[in-house]
Formats: sequence, structure tokens, C-alpha cells
Amino acid sequence: MTETPARVPQGERTRLMRARLLDATVDLLVERGFAGTTTTLVSERAGVSRGAQLHHFPTKNDLVVAAVEHLTEVRGAELAAAAAALPPDVPRTRGVLQVLGDHFTSPVFVAALELWVAARTDPGLQASLGPLEQKVGRETHRLTVELLDADESVEGVRELVQATLDLVRGLGLANTISDDAARRARILDRWAHTLDTTLTRRQR
Amino acid sequence: MTETPARVPQGERTRLMRARLLDATVDLLVERGFAGTTTTLVSERAGVSRGAQLHHFPTKNDLVVAAVEHLTEVRGAELAAAAAALPPDVPRTRGVLQVLGDHFTSPVFVAALELWVAARTDPGLQASLGPLEQKVGRETHRLTVELLDADESVEGVRELVQATLDLVRGLGLANTISDDAARRARILDRWAHTLDTTLTRRQR
Repeated sequence: MTETPARVPQGERTRLMRARLLDATVDLLVERGFAGTTTTLVSERAGVSRGAQLHHFPTKNDLVVAAVEHLTEVRGAELAAAAAALPPDVPRTRGVLQVLGDHFTSPVFVAALELWVAARTDPGLQASLGPLEQKVGRETHRLTVELLDADESVEGVRELVQATLDLVRGLGLANTISDDAARRARILDRWAHTLDTTLTRRQR
Repeated sequence: MTETPARVPQGERTRLMRARLLDATVDLLVERGFAGTTTTLVSERAGVSRGAQLHHFPTKNDLVVAAVEHLTEVRGAELAAAAAALPPDVPRTRGVLQVLGDHFTSPVFVAALELWVAARTDPGLQASLGPLEQKVGRETHRLTVELLDADESVEGVRELVQATLDLVRGLGLANTISDDAARRARILDRWAHTLDTTLTRRQR
């Protein structure tokens, strides 16, 4: 420990700069979409020189793929944090659906949607995105099973959990152009009721 | 009727040319995405001169908006035709879900998804797309209620029908990058079971 406290180590400075670039990429994906996200805009937004940006991420694809990985971590952390802080005054199942519904209508979902749709017609992006999305999908499923106390050893329970996630994905897509919160709340009320009457729970 | 049968009237020729341009636009949206769809490619694909194309659709936005309207008709007709031809050997509810699942994974859904996502960051496109999507949404809902014999006068039934459509929209999105047919079939099996045990039907 020979450094003074005011001096930020090089490794830490690099880490912070990369994080600023990736955050800026996600913000621009939300604001301007995939086509409107350029490396020039990203370096301006992040306050990072073009030279430094090009050193770390030579192409738009490098930047966007790294942003996807960054997104993956943000998504996972967001969801786990929200799940850990379920409000005590809301019935459990409805609270879990609220967390999922919020997650799939957040800016993080919107940025992921932009990448997902762009990757459909961009094989390079698709090759990078596919395995990551599988990993995120498995992780989200695991967390949902745990939150709902679902007993996946019972036939049909796994599919009911998957249906819940496909439902909130569909609700997320419906929310991208207009605010769909009121309709979504009624659907999730009803879905909570259905899960409470049809889902087999694990014994605690 | 003074015309010979071999002669196609001018109005009909114009209608056919417009249909070719709009079909080509939809095809290109599926193959190359919104950003990759250019007016030059559309006129080449449709076999229509640039001059004629520009006369009917001066800008990409004109072309895409007209293609959305065209899509709307194609979507409605496709869905109604499939619903009218439900296979007799499959239980009714599962058959209806198959039709919806097929519809939301068809090229027509993919083209609409491209427009939907592009419209999120394009106010002009959004202004044209919003009302149309509302109309299509209402029509799809009405058809689904009818196919499922759902009694919407009973509390919660409307929301269960909406959840069904949000589910298949989510399944459609999940299918855009990789073929998700096997997983989708299992989820729809389970959803059919859920609807059969929780949905109140109309008295015939």
C-alpha cells in the first residue's frame, strides 16, 4: 500500500471507464434503438475519448456484445434484489408476479429487446447473444421456481412456470409503445389467482 | 364489357403492382429487418420500376406504413381461416391455442415485430402503427373469445383471454432466434389444461 488514497489505481480507472461505455451503450439502445446506437454517440455519452473507446471496443459489435454481458449481470442483480425485497403487505404470488412484470417492462428489458431483434438478422450478434440468453433464461427460471415455491417434480408444474415467464415477456413487448400498466395489473391479479389454485407448491 | 378478356384494366394493374410492393416489403422486413429494408431493394424484389414505386410510395415510411395496413389484413385473414379449419381430432381448446401459437410465430408476426420495435424510437412510424395495432388487438381478442367460447360477463374471464394472447406473444418473441416449437407445444398443452379447468364458457 504505497499509493495515496486519492490516487485511483490504473486497473480501477479502466474498469470504471468500461462500465461508463457499457452503461452509455445500454442507455442509447433504449433511447435510439439498435440502428441509432453508434460508437461515436457512445463515446460522447460516456465522456470517453474515441481513442480509448476504440482501444477497448474496436467495433460496434464488440461494444454491443460486451453491453449484453453487462446487461446480463444488471438483469440478474435487479431481479434478485427485487425478489429479496418483496413487500410484506401483498400476497406472495401476486408480489412475485409484480417483480417479474416490473422486470420485463424495465429499460433493461427494452435494451435486450433491441439486441434480440437486431440479432435475428445479424448472425454475428446472434452467435454472441444466443448462449447468453440461454443462461439468463435458465437463471430467471430457477429464481422464479424458488420465489413461487413451485414443485417441479409434479407433472405440468415446470410448464406453468415457463408459461408465467412467457406471459410476462409478452406483457413486456405490449408495453414498449404505450403504457400498459393498468391492463397488466389486472392480468397479473388474475394470473396470481390461477397459480394459487393450480400450482403445486414445495413442502417447506 | 367492351374489353377483351386478355386485357387487364388499369385499376387492376395498379392494385396488383401495389400488392407486389407491399408483399416485397414484408418479405424484406422478415429477411433483413427494418434497418435492412430499403426502397431500392423493395422495387428490385417486387419487379417494379423505381419511378412507379416512388409514385405510389414516395418514402420508406410511406411504404412501411402501407405494408403495416396490408399486414393487418393478412394477419386477420390468416387467423380467421385457420380458426375456421380447426382439426377435428384435437381437443378444441388445444386446437385454438395451436392456431394462436402458429400465428404468433409466423413470418407475419416477425414482420410486425420489426415494425413494432422500430416504431418504439420512431415517432412518425409509431403514430401510424399505434391505432392499427389497437384495432388488430381488439379483433384478435374478439376472435379468441369466440373460439374459446369464453363468457366475458364472468369476472376474470376477460383477463384470462388477454393472458392467453400475451402468452402467445411472448412465445412468438422467444421463437424469433431459435426454433422453440417443442417447448412451446408442452407449454400450450399445459395452458389448455389450465383454461379447461378455470375458464367459464358461454352456454351454447
